[in-house]
Amino acid sequence: MTAAFTPPSPDHTRRGGRAGKRAGASATFEQPPFRQLKIPFEPTRIVSDDELESIHLASLRVLKEIGVEVLHEEARAIMKRHGADVRDGSERVRFDSDMIMELMASCPSEFTLHARNPAHNVRFGGNNLIFAQMGSAPNCSDMDGGRRPGNQADFRNFLKLAQMHNILNTTGGYPVEPVDIHPSVRHLECIRDFVTFTDKAFHIYSLGKERNTDGIEIARIARGISREQLQDEPSVYTIINTNSPLKLDVPMMEGIIQMSGKGQIVIVTPFTLAGAMAPVTVAGALVQQNAEALAGLAFSQMVKKGAPVGYGGFTSNVDMKSGAPAFGTPEYMKAQLVGGQLARRYNIPYRTSNVCAANTVDAQAAYESVFSLWGAIQGGGNFMLHSAGWLEGGLRCSYEKMILDIDLLQMVAEFLTPLDLSEDALAIEAIRSVGPGGHFFGTQHTQDRYKTAFYAPIISDWRNYETWMEAGSPTAMERANRIWKERLASYEKPPLDPAIEEELNAFVEKRRLEGGAPTDF
Amino acid sequence: MTAAFTPPSPDHTRRGGRAGKRAGASATFEQPPFRQLKIPFEPTRIVSDDELESIHLASLRVLKEIGVEVLHEEARAIMKRHGADVRDGSERVRFDSDMIMELMASCPSEFTLHARNPAHNVRFGGNNLIFAQMGSAPNCSDMDGGRRPGNQADFRNFLKLAQMHNILNTTGGYPVEPVDIHPSVRHLECIRDFVTFTDKAFHIYSLGKERNTDGIEIARIARGISREQLQDEPSVYTIINTNSPLKLDVPMMEGIIQMSGKGQIVIVTPFTLAGAMAPVTVAGALVQQNAEALAGLAFSQMVKKGAPVGYGGFTSNVDMKSGAPAFGTPEYMKAQLVGGQLARRYNIPYRTSNVCAANTVDAQAAYESVFSLWGAIQGGGNFMLHSAGWLEGGLRCSYEKMILDIDLLQMVAEFLTPLDLSEDALAIEAIRSVGPGGHFFGTQHTQDRYKTAFYAPIISDWRNYETWMEAGSPTAMERANRIWKERLASYEKPPLDPAIEEELNAFVEKRRLEGGAPTDF
Repeated sequence: MTAAFTPPSPDHTRRGGRAGKRAGASATFEQPPFRQLKIPFEPTRIVSDDELESIHLASLRVLKEIGVEVLHEEARAIMKRHGADVRDGSERVRFDSDMIMELMASCPSEFTLHARNPAHNVRFGGNNLIFAQMGSAPNCSDMDGGRRPGNQADFRNFLKLAQMHNILNTTGGYPVEPVDIHPSVRHLECIRDFVTFTDKAFHIYSLGKERNTDGIEIARIARGISREQLQDEPSVYTIINTNSPLKLDVPMMEGIIQMSGKGQIVIVTPFTLAGAMAPVTVAGALVQQNAEALAGLAFSQMVKKGAPVGYGGFTSNVDMKSGAPAFGTPEYMKAQLVGGQLARRYNIPYRTSNVCAANTVDAQAAYESVFSLWGAIQGGGNFMLHSAGWLEGGLRCSYEKMILDIDLLQMVAEFLTPLDLSEDALAIEAIRSVGPGGHFFGTQHTQDRYKTAFYAPIISDWRNYETWMEAGSPTAMERANRIWKERLASYEKPPLDPAIEEELNAFVEKRRLEGGAPTDF
Repeated sequence: MTAAFTPPSPDHTRRGGRAGKRAGASATFEQPPFRQLKIPFEPTRIVSDDELESIHLASLRVLKEIGVEVLHEEARAIMKRHGADVRDGSERVRFDSDMIMELMASCPSEFTLHARNPAHNVRFGGNNLIFAQMGSAPNCSDMDGGRRPGNQADFRNFLKLAQMHNILNTTGGYPVEPVDIHPSVRHLECIRDFVTFTDKAFHIYSLGKERNTDGIEIARIARGISREQLQDEPSVYTIINTNSPLKLDVPMMEGIIQMSGKGQIVIVTPFTLAGAMAPVTVAGALVQQNAEALAGLAFSQMVKKGAPVGYGGFTSNVDMKSGAPAFGTPEYMKAQLVGGQLARRYNIPYRTSNVCAANTVDAQAAYESVFSLWGAIQGGGNFMLHSAGWLEGGLRCSYEKMILDIDLLQMVAEFLTPLDLSEDALAIEAIRSVGPGGHFFGTQHTQDRYKTAFYAPIISDWRNYETWMEAGSPTAMERANRIWKERLASYEKPPLDPAIEEELNAFVEKRRLEGGAPTDF
């Protein structure tokens, strides 16, 4: 603080004198504690209830008249038993609208995802908000090492960053695919790492029955609970991306059977890119998204009534010149808001994302991401996958983007923290004591609060131009590069009960010796 | 479009083959036409009605118990005539709450700002949204020429960019201060440039009576109308930044007397930086913002009942380590939302901004700006000053930021365009014709729409990584640099009636010969 500060005028701003001399953002930033975030305001309704109903009814017509292709024989048998229109010799399944809605009514509106550290449990549904790290990038990058295929060392580094940043409530699949581990045992190594490098809840991939059952068993071992308790306490989640348009393949159906059958969380997320795997209109893409989501979600309730599920929205548009997917676009934001309205219509948790198509951590990466956050938060998202690290349309997890996103998420969390409107905060006495023409720097009201009054960003550089130039005019990306290295250096493994670690290692060894999982997925 | 496109999975995205080969963003982009934007959804209520009332009541207490300092003698006399508590020998004026609310009730809720080209008229209030270019930067910059003090050439370049981009509904004061023109005649030259380089509505500075009366007269000449018609048709606007805390100085009061007295638009915008010129709590800063705004707005209605006004929100926080103002922060967003709730409580148009504190057009500039846009749009902003060009806390107008912001504003406008939910858009027949497992690239439904289906961004680079690298890995800032130069090169002056131009020049010459305006403001 400086007494030399000269009050500027908003439309004639001046920052001079000794203002803006603070050092650049520090890596040893103080974090808010791990907490269950909530969205304190009503989500934005971008379409009317009647308009929403027209999307809902159109998707029911798609399910009834067109149907979906279900490639999994047992799944078709389950559907038939529940009254779906399944015909011999055909993979096409059609659904009666009342049946779909009856099944949807059995989806729980809220539930808890349990972590091995109970302090890291998170709540799905209602106005709860969960941030999960990015998942599934084939590549990673940083400014020093450049872009490279994923490997175990980078995979573990990203888990460390997920563990040490309280704003990341869970991990979100493999932040980067560690291709240096053989695919047959990769899931065993990766999930063991989830449990040992972090104590937060995690995701497992639905890529064949073994990967699901191994993941569920490791989640059980990590929590040291019985199979019965696990059944009642969701402790792991999976994402089911339908094969748009209108196809549900074998690993997807197998994943729902294993996960829903054991009371674990299934989030059905159609990848309805308008103009590619879905109609070129946002409304049409949403109709298809909704039809596919309803098919998957209804199936989960056939497997087990009351199984915890989430409605995933991922509808975006493509660059019509190339077919490349675009993210954080106006069309994407509209789809996010309508997706939220649909999920609330069915009264189930809504999954969103923080995504961009940029190739580097520049202005584009930031504006596409913040537009994504805008749509997700105003859309009432409950679970945000790919919250941190996502670059290049998901082809890359970036160390610098990870830090940038952590800062963005912390800002969003601060924005969502209810305003203090106590008498003290309204500050009439402070205003009286300062009076016209004074300033508030030196007042007791300010002195008592200034250290914690405002969110202190990780990356934002608020130094004045001259000081910033003298410091080498660092961009936000360069500051993020310095910070992730300092952060990683201070990582500490979370404690793990030695008995649990032993059981975990024994299970992984046994499954390795058995050959792991088939690699023909 | 390419048929070789491989549908990826959202959480396992791949972009390969011939995808992503389109050329980088082109400077000759097609713009949506000039239009009156509207926000199609309810603004976000971040505080309850009761909480809002506590801010409102606290600010009325400030006006009644503490009062404001009014440095302008005639203004004090006017206030006294209207029942304010004005005492001889004191500049302090206190206001009765009922009196304030009665005056506020006479503010119009909607009105039109007339441009010399009637196609560029814009509507204030309701759910209308107006984007104005940035104003009042002392410096400008571009990547080639670096940072420099403002001058007439850059001033004119920015006016050209404002004129040729339909998304900018009006200019917003001097985008950069042309310090190479003598202050006594600067306003004459600059306002003549507003009228000749653009045909959009413009702002005049309240820096002494002459500048107001000259600006109003030039607006009249530009429209070729009588003084009587001008009185009924607002054709120019001014911003009154109160001298926080709680001070209204001579030029401000003079500006309101001149502008409101002649039926022109006054936007009262307190610059309540929490922790500096306002309490360190966001609630306290808002109480003070509201008290100062009400004082200025009520005074405008004493000058002329029904004079068109706007409620300006500019509350932000400072970096408590340096005193430097911060923008686009979580605190700023909260203040934007509450500001909108207050403006709607008084049923008058709400002015917001698109601001950042970044020193270059990097990720920070983008995220601070998009957070500002988020707060402004969800806060129900009607008039957004500093919509395009603002960098470095307002100390600089940047050519590259101007193009970036134009792209961001166009994206926001597209986001606000209501979704087409016609039968055709719902696309059941297209979904039927493609069926499970197909793709939509080749369908008639897509062919009929793909050229205009999605917003085509100016800056976003959606090429795949390899193509982007081959092209020299341009950042968003570098792309913006190329684009503003190409855009400026294609500028054409808007037509101006020769008789009006002659009258305008004669007026400016006469006023130049008279010495212009005093320079002791």
